[in-house]
Amino acid sequence: MVKKEDICLCGDGEGIAVVLIGHGSTLPYNKEVLEELRRRIEIREIFKVVKVAFMQLNSPSIEEVLRTLAKDGMKKIVALPVFLADGAHTIEDIPKKLKVAFEGAWKEIGEDVELIYAKPLGADDRIVSLILDRVNEAVSGE
Amino acid sequence: MVKKEDICLCGDGEGIAVVLIGHGSTLPYNKEVLEELRRRIEIREIFKVVKVAFMQLNSPSIEEVLRTLAKDGMKKIVALPVFLADGAHTIEDIPKKLKVAFEGAWKEIGEDVELIYAKPLGADDRIVSLILDRVNEAVSGE
Repeated sequence: MVKKEDICLCGDGEGIAVVLIGHGSTLPYNKEVLEELRRRIEIREIFKVVKVAFMQLNSPSIEEVLRTLAKDGMKKIVALPVFLADGAHTIEDIPKKLKVAFEGAWKEIGEDVELIYAKPLGADDRIVSLILDRVNEAVSGE
Repeated sequence: MVKKEDICLCGDGEGIAVVLIGHGSTLPYNKEVLEELRRRIEIREIFKVVKVAFMQLNSPSIEEVLRTLAKDGMKKIVALPVFLADGAHTIEDIPKKLKVAFEGAWKEIGEDVELIYAKPLGADDRIVSLILDRVNEAVSGE
């Protein structure tokens, strides 16, 4: 099993690229939500680049996005699984895909590229607040 | 295919029970996050009851929780899928399980029980804020 620690090659530097990693779905909603989150982060102009990538079913794939970023000369990439909690996908599947991309063709492009794996969303009062809104909307028939 | 509209029997009333529906996982984290969210909502004392239920792999199941709530005399239940976005699970699998519970043994207990199906979290600035925190933690090595 590939642990997330295997692909966490942390450090400091300028020009961060953020990759929001979605689960992927046969329906359009996962991709739509990821793209909307990406857009809202991009307009804040905190990071040099903000991309979405999907673990499965949708494109672009994780490997495609990492390859593009490396080709574009990005030296520091933060990959964040946009999942509520850790699970088999965030602990095994996604790190495995990141590792393959990192160790494979990508290394040929830039050995000095740094890849940092961020944590999923987790339990937080901002999620609580969002849940309360959704309950209220449901009860009021919105 | 069972649509969510089939189990959305909306209306007004007192004494709401909220059921946070999690995906379920072979690892403990999904259940831990759901239970922590439940605890944080419960202590706000907005709702009469707040429960967690899992679509698969963890207990209690959706049917178990709905049955318990009906037996306890709850007349208005809001079931909320704690998922980032709609997908096959929230549009087909969970509504199907809710419908089975509602149309089966549960109806014997109380035909006047109202079941409202809420929306998943969706794209929201609170999720954006949480993502930015996770990126910052990852970059600073927290």
